[in-house]
Amino acid sequence: MSDSTGLTIVIATERDVPHILAFIKALAEYERLADSVVATEEGLRATLFGPRPFAECVIARWNGEPAGFALFFHNYSTFLARPGVYLEDLFVKPELRGKGVGRSLLQYLAKVAVDRGCGRLEWSVLDWNESAIGFYKSLGAEPLEDWTIFRLKGDALARLSGG
Amino acid sequence: MSDSTGLTIVIATERDVPHILAFIKALAEYERLADSVVATEEGLRATLFGPRPFAECVIARWNGEPAGFALFFHNYSTFLARPGVYLEDLFVKPELRGKGVGRSLLQYLAKVAVDRGCGRLEWSVLDWNESAIGFYKSLGAEPLEDWTIFRLKGDALARLSGG
Repeated sequence: MSDSTGLTIVIATERDVPHILAFIKALAEYERLADSVVATEEGLRATLFGPRPFAECVIARWNGEPAGFALFFHNYSTFLARPGVYLEDLFVKPELRGKGVGRSLLQYLAKVAVDRGCGRLEWSVLDWNESAIGFYKSLGAEPLEDWTIFRLKGDALARLSGG
Repeated sequence: MSDSTGLTIVIATERDVPHILAFIKALAEYERLADSVVATEEGLRATLFGPRPFAECVIARWNGEPAGFALFFHNYSTFLARPGVYLEDLFVKPELRGKGVGRSLLQYLAKVAVDRGCGRLEWSVLDWNESAIGFYKSLGAEPLEDWTIFRLKGDALARLSGG
């Protein structure tokens, strides 16, 4: 791949798992959430490239080298009775920012959404990440200010599941 | 089904589509978002019961009659390298509240999450819905206060997809 020039976006394969894990860890570091990462290469292989893939992943390459990635899955809108595309992770290596890599990854996902008949492309952003928020608004994305995500996990999830 | 007594939760089939649409509309009414619903029975059939179902649905019955529903799909956590369960809609008919129907639907989803090796059960709630928020917190669910959902749709989505 090293003979390609400029930006290419390719669908990730199992061979990209080490790069994907590195991107996940780098994103977590940037989000000040590094302690939350327990993902392993084995876990990524099983859940992304096993018999039942739970998400899809594309890799951006700059002059052939991995420059960033986007990981996404289908969500669903009952109000539209249509699937959507939910972008779980978007990351570009710091030294390769400002070259349109992030925008190209988002554009790829927008095409996926349109091609598959999806009504929306959605994602979540940390409230302090003003540069990302400004970028998203410049694309015409709207923040859903009135909604809060709730999460049940660990002991509380086990407790509810048991009774 | 009318000879069953008390509460039962069953996996929805295509025959439940009229009930599902009625629940979606009733939930939208409650959320003051009725104008946003463009779903049709045909759309629900195609996206929930066609060759590629984009979400799963369970119906709660009280003494055999449809009392509420939960609609969910799998999301994905890169930090865990595991899928999660995302609850898109939860609704119980107003006249059948207070009987544990909503809790039983959430419990069903918690079991699905645990049985399928998911790390989390997540959903979103409108910030003014204090009774729901209190209920969710009583189960041990935590609000992700630092995150905002962004949405790209319509013309802005088409524009980005095109270049």
